[in-house]
Amino acid sequence: MVAGRLSAPPIAALLGFTLEEVEPGRAVFALEPGEEHYNPIGSVHGGVYATLLDSAAGCAVHSTLPQGTAYTSLDLSTRFLRPVTMDTGKIRAVGTVLSQGRRTALAEAGLYDAEDRLLAHATSTCMLFPVPS
Amino acid sequence: MVAGRLSAPPIAALLGFTLEEVEPGRAVFALEPGEEHYNPIGSVHGGVYATLLDSAAGCAVHSTLPQGTAYTSLDLSTRFLRPVTMDTGKIRAVGTVLSQGRRTALAEAGLYDAEDRLLAHATSTCMLFPVPS
Amino acid sequence: MVAGRLSAPPIAALLGFTLEEVEPGRAVFALEPGEEHYNPIGSVHGGVYATLLDSAAGCAVHSTLPQGTAYTSLDLSTRFLRPVTMDTGKIRAVGTVLSQGRRTALAEAGLYDAEDRLLAHATSTCMLFPVPS
Amino acid sequence: MVAGRLSAPPIAALLGFTLEEVEPGRAVFALEPGEEHYNPIGSVHGGVYATLLDSAAGCAVHSTLPQGTAYTSLDLSTRFLRPVTMDTGKIRAVGTVLSQGRRTALAEAGLYDAEDRLLAHATSTCMLFPVPS
Repeated sequence: MVAGRLSAPPIAALLGFTLEEVEPGRAVFALEPGEEHYNPIGSVHGGVYATLLDSAAGCAVHSTLPQGTAYTSLDLSTRFLRPVTMDTGKIRAVGTVLSQGRRTALAEAGLYDAEDRLLAHATSTCMLFPVPS
Repeated sequence: MVAGRLSAPPIAALLGFTLEEVEPGRAVFALEPGEEHYNPIGSVHGGVYATLLDSAAGCAVHSTLPQGTAYTSLDLSTRFLRPVTMDTGKIRAVGTVLSQGRRTALAEAGLYDAEDRLLAHATSTCMLFPVPS
Repeated sequence: MVAGRLSAPPIAALLGFTLEEVEPGRAVFALEPGEEHYNPIGSVHGGVYATLLDSAAGCAVHSTLPQGTAYTSLDLSTRFLRPVTMDTGKIRAVGTVLSQGRRTALAEAGLYDAEDRLLAHATSTCMLFPVPS
Repeated sequence: MVAGRLSAPPIAALLGFTLEEVEPGRAVFALEPGEEHYNPIGSVHGGVYATLLDSAAGCAVHSTLPQGTAYTSLDLSTRFLRPVTMDTGKIRAVGTVLSQGRRTALAEAGLYDAEDRLLAHATSTCMLFPVPS
């Protein structure tokens, strides 16, 4: 997907975000905020933050799983720190695995602007399970 | 907005959700899930749940504020309980105010299918402040 | 334990809280706040709130489990709404199961004073698993 | 308090935890787990984790505040990763400020054993306000 050989998932196409980097235990998604992401008061809706942070946290977990193991996100605890508008420019959600056990993994994700200011933060617990074969 | 006299915010138009009901301390948003909301594994992305839950919680808080008071969401703690697909049919996010103080309000929101099964749950703290005049 | 036939767990003895009620899907713990629960600024420490809410949420989940199934709390998302002091009088944490699946359960808990004002709120996801035999 | 010149708050005396380090934006609390901290299943109660994490997060925020500014914790989102028993030995909660604005601050805290394995994690939003004079 990073290399452009896999098509983006539908939600990424709809909202316009892309996977920028992925390595074991870390994933980065990016979005250029536009008016179409706005809430009624003229800034990017919190749900867009959550979508990016959830994607980054989940993909970071996914990147560490051995073959035959799948995951599902149990929750996402998001903190909104700064408003985002079109003037913010490109924003990046960086997900990192904090802890990985046999049955669950914990990831955190930070949303940053171009000056690396933290705009939002999230943690997410994922449940791991064997892929039904 | 419920009556169709105000235009929907851009994010609602983009994702296709609508405000269905609002009364003091309670707000309901609805969405017909489609393939455009899907994550890479073929179900609705958690960020879409979060968008609906955040909208419902925030709007419930907004509905109780006296004139001259505004709010901003500080966080959204979302729990994902069941996968949602196009087969789920219309889903509804019902936001309710749990507590309102002078400086903050706490709201919860539940996401339900047509059989009123709980698909996801969230709580959100909003900070209240005087509208700058 | 409610009937006084089982001894309280050590942490309950140390902090002075008791199980007051338990029925399938619901559990209530109570505490008489004292100076020993205080933080440096002269009110009950948030950790005491969390202890009561975690106990109530976990016990509510426990009360619904079939024989041979155990649980472990994955998280506790606590919201602090009002300060508690000795003047507050007895406080009660009421835990309720919101959703129970095959692998996880979600519970919420509210902390109330004698006038049933909400002092704090929490949600908790528990992972369910077969008891090793 | 670190230097032993201030008395510990009552809850710290009751549970037996101590402030080990504090510097601007960072605070460390420590506890030697004992049987008195146990839940009914023979490991340290989640509320004890939450007490340490809340103390570390709050104290980290407190350490950065200018004179005349106070704070109150709005929430604590705790993740439980590993069980703790007396065999775990001394545990340390390390709180760090992630972001500080004019009206709120966000802190995270990790709970570690002697081998620096992450046992639990929390984030907390604090509201800042002028000290009433």
